[in-house]
Amino acid sequence: MHPAPTSPAALRATTPTERVREAYRREAAVGRPEVWLALRPEADALADAADVEARLAAGADLPLAGLMLAVKDNVDVAGLPTTAGHPDYAHTPERSATAVRRLVDAGAVVMGKTALDQFATGLSGARSLRGAVRSAVDPERVAGGSSSGSGAAVGLGIVDLAIATDTAGSGRVPAAFNGIVGIKATYGLVPKDGVIPACPSYDCVTVLAPTLALAAQAIRLMSGPSPLDPASRDWPADVRLGAPPAPRVAIPRDEDLATLGPQARELFAAAAARLEARGAVLGEIDLTPFLRAARLLYEGGLVAERHASFGEFLAEHPEQAEPSVAAITSAAAHVTGSAVVRDQELLRTLRAEAMGALAGFDALLTPTAPSHPTVAAVQAEPIAVNARLGVYTNFVNLLDLAAVAVPAGASASEGLFGVSVVTRAFEDQVALDLAGWLTGEEPPLYPATGVPTVVFGAHLSGEARNHELHLLGARFVREVVTAPDYRMHVTADGNRPIVVPTVPGAGSSFPGEEWLLSVAALGRLVTRVAAPLSIGHVTLDDGSSVVGFAGAVTGLEADISAAGGWRSHRRAATATAKAAAPVP
Amino acid sequence: MHPAPTSPAALRATTPTERVREAYRREAAVGRPEVWLALRPEADALADAADVEARLAAGADLPLAGLMLAVKDNVDVAGLPTTAGHPDYAHTPERSATAVRRLVDAGAVVMGKTALDQFATGLSGARSLRGAVRSAVDPERVAGGSSSGSGAAVGLGIVDLAIATDTAGSGRVPAAFNGIVGIKATYGLVPKDGVIPACPSYDCVTVLAPTLALAAQAIRLMSGPSPLDPASRDWPADVRLGAPPAPRVAIPRDEDLATLGPQARELFAAAAARLEARGAVLGEIDLTPFLRAARLLYEGGLVAERHASFGEFLAEHPEQAEPSVAAITSAAAHVTGSAVVRDQELLRTLRAEAMGALAGFDALLTPTAPSHPTVAAVQAEPIAVNARLGVYTNFVNLLDLAAVAVPAGASASEGLFGVSVVTRAFEDQVALDLAGWLTGEEPPLYPATGVPTVVFGAHLSGEARNHELHLLGARFVREVVTAPDYRMHVTADGNRPIVVPTVPGAGSSFPGEEWLLSVAALGRLVTRVAAPLSIGHVTLDDGSSVVGFAGAVTGLEADISAAGGWRSHRRAATATAKAAAPVP
Repeated sequence: MHPAPTSPAALRATTPTERVREAYRREAAVGRPEVWLALRPEADALADAADVEARLAAGADLPLAGLMLAVKDNVDVAGLPTTAGHPDYAHTPERSATAVRRLVDAGAVVMGKTALDQFATGLSGARSLRGAVRSAVDPERVAGGSSSGSGAAVGLGIVDLAIATDTAGSGRVPAAFNGIVGIKATYGLVPKDGVIPACPSYDCVTVLAPTLALAAQAIRLMSGPSPLDPASRDWPADVRLGAPPAPRVAIPRDEDLATLGPQARELFAAAAARLEARGAVLGEIDLTPFLRAARLLYEGGLVAERHASFGEFLAEHPEQAEPSVAAITSAAAHVTGSAVVRDQELLRTLRAEAMGALAGFDALLTPTAPSHPTVAAVQAEPIAVNARLGVYTNFVNLLDLAAVAVPAGASASEGLFGVSVVTRAFEDQVALDLAGWLTGEEPPLYPATGVPTVVFGAHLSGEARNHELHLLGARFVREVVTAPDYRMHVTADGNRPIVVPTVPGAGSSFPGEEWLLSVAALGRLVTRVAAPLSIGHVTLDDGSSVVGFAGAVTGLEADISAAGGWRSHRRAATATAKAAAPVP
Repeated sequence: MHPAPTSPAALRATTPTERVREAYRREAAVGRPEVWLALRPEADALADAADVEARLAAGADLPLAGLMLAVKDNVDVAGLPTTAGHPDYAHTPERSATAVRRLVDAGAVVMGKTALDQFATGLSGARSLRGAVRSAVDPERVAGGSSSGSGAAVGLGIVDLAIATDTAGSGRVPAAFNGIVGIKATYGLVPKDGVIPACPSYDCVTVLAPTLALAAQAIRLMSGPSPLDPASRDWPADVRLGAPPAPRVAIPRDEDLATLGPQARELFAAAAARLEARGAVLGEIDLTPFLRAARLLYEGGLVAERHASFGEFLAEHPEQAEPSVAAITSAAAHVTGSAVVRDQELLRTLRAEAMGALAGFDALLTPTAPSHPTVAAVQAEPIAVNARLGVYTNFVNLLDLAAVAVPAGASASEGLFGVSVVTRAFEDQVALDLAGWLTGEEPPLYPATGVPTVVFGAHLSGEARNHELHLLGARFVREVVTAPDYRMHVTADGNRPIVVPTVPGAGSSFPGEEWLLSVAALGRLVTRVAAPLSIGHVTLDDGSSVVGFAGAVTGLEADISAAGGWRSHRRAATATAKAAAPVP
């Protein structure tokens, strides 16, 4: 197993207790009180850290032990008020949101509740009553929203992880503007019970972290259906478990990047080139259906979701309402039922068109936001500047896509820049893998639903049928060796090895590769395996039994056990063929 | 292969041409002009029949050759006006709806367009401007709606098949009231391009036929995604392909059947008893979440879908508007966007509750409609009587369920009665199988996505692990025999046969069973197969290669080939054991 991912800040601490102390020291040092709507007393966090240490001492496996967690203040943490950025809205829940609870169960310690654009409506981070949250890296510019405090708390190195929410990009734009990673999983994978709704049909709970590996670890822990969230979804039977070695990655046409500044254009091209250097095949697509969908979020009927969620409350509590949020929501009161229905229907059509544009592609690479505005620019034009920020993020949730936002550079003239890897629903692991190509990290495996399957011959990496595994969405796990219970024969055509069992201990060990396949992919693989090969179970040298290629022999197939495996047999056969070739 | 299903009327005709002539004779004889909004000239239908005959002569496989088709007049047939029951709404499409085209491609001949409750809004069949459509069987009572003409045309024996649509029960209530079968497949399986929308989020294209086998054949042909319908859906990788031998069937509690008359109560109990007699295990569930969802269709925000679809048109063309439909739709103009959003969210919650109630059950059996009103009763209270009809049908589409409606008897005092088998989305085949238990028919296999898989040992019918196949949603297909290319050994524990290949022709043939599994089920089966068994391909006695159990031997496993198969080996082994037992 790999060591659990961690963060630079946590690496400096030797114990959970020390990590808590370091977090509070850092919080005091940075002088950014606007980041927090509620900071827990240090003593409370220290008590939690002591509890984590006791669980560790008792032998618990706590992959997030020693990590500090900030929670956006529209997500419930038991015993702390949830305000959604509106003081009158406060309630103090007895139960934490499932997403929070799962991270705390894994050892994270909650530090406090972070600022947000009120009711999670905004992408700038300037719609908090405590004042605009500034970027952790470039304080003249905004932290991005609506998860502004969560983004800044991670970017400033105060906490290791932050829970955010994302309907229009609220979990990704703050990643871009604070130089960190944000993961917006497929809708429903992370339960959203205990979260104040904004647009319940599209709201997602997300995570922010300094590294992709840590963010991926957290989102994996947060995922899985919950009876508390009727919209939560489980992985399908045919989930893709990895990016292929030469993924086809869609990128926008030049005209769909026209609003980017010159530095951002260069940084976007550099990110695309980085994927290309790792083996991706880039192809331009027309983003029109995506961009049309993006505009539907605020410019049509769908904004009625926000009015349904908190419109009446804002109308009844105008004194603490953030003016832009109040303006958007009160306008939404006039949306008719028919307008909602028609835009939902239009969205279905746009989704079909967008899926058509993505057909044949493994992912879409976009800027996360087109520009990184200054605080002053947002304050001068609060609605217009904000609206422009969502051009590449708004469509993701509406079209049922997954996205991973990663840093992609910065410039003094244009601020921070990030890119997002976007995939179809449930292809989150593909997005994580490609994001890892961009950050240079190895993200952990996201869905834990695959079947480890051992291959010995033509499906090995680099061999003739290896591409079939990639087409099936399979993921390479490791090289393995069987128990000494087998012999290896070769089919009459010389193309495939047959691993046949002997009396245990009376055979040889053979090298193979373990791949992870979804159950549907395994079923499809079986349909493609011609006799005398088959798929059953093999025993590995550690005594474990795993699914793997098997077979039987009729007596006609040559025994190639002495070669010690398929690759060495093939090398030897090739050398023999060369030696036998007539000298020209 | 089974012969293609047909209808009693079609059986009397010897050729498609003769079938057309018979249909027009019957239409003239029954004296029900209100059934049709447009009847094609007989000469046009005869020309189509001649074309079908030419295609048959050229060797085409036309499973619906010689069958007459009626099409509800909210579904496009190229060259005929589509009116949705409102003369001013008429347009004449150049292209037929995909659902129609697929049946015509399979040999059906369109006879005309049938009456409907205007804009498919109603369940009585009394909302057509041509006058109430009367039941084919009990003319004092209504034909049911909104697919009234389609139901009556089939019930009267004029046509063999009719296309209907169904949002609230419009494809099932007319089945109940005309003594025929109606299939409402999972939303999206039948494309709905070329169909006038009523509630596009829930509208389904359905089929009506005199027998289950024919209806199932037609819905199979109509199904499959189309690029013309962005909401169309394909079968998932883990689809269930059949009902288990002892399915758990939910039935409503007594209080949820309170509005049924005494005859209907008896007929419902008889249908449930029929399932029980075939092996079903009945269990009462609380229908509350289902019934709450049902009420949402007209009593809350969701009716905005109807206003969005045709509300403005009706407001602009009041002179030909059916009064009840106009009243419902004009009221829906005032539904706010927030009300739509809130009811959609409530529906998600109710869906989760309903799925919880159904957990552990394979299907739900309900009355199709609670009563069969007279024409006079509907005309006296057009909205109230109609609303009561949908109590058991309205929730099906809203909760993303599938349903098959079959006849369940009649009485002079209460009219016709039907029941519906309701299943979760994509478990349509389970509903078809149970409906077949009720009608005594064998429906054809619905999703054509399974992998034929041959078993030889413990998975055979009646053997120890056969239940695993049922749990995987597998379906028994047939008994098979292998090519004479195998030997059969037995595992050391005596529990499992190992079929191992010999040099082709040098072995024996063994009997087995072919089962159909989804690809995900096949993958899951592989994970459960312990060495030395495996799953690969076997050659059958007809030379075909199919997926099946395989295996290898180490030399320790006894050769039981002489027994001629697993069952005969087991019988022989049991007899030997008995003979060897000491005399008491």
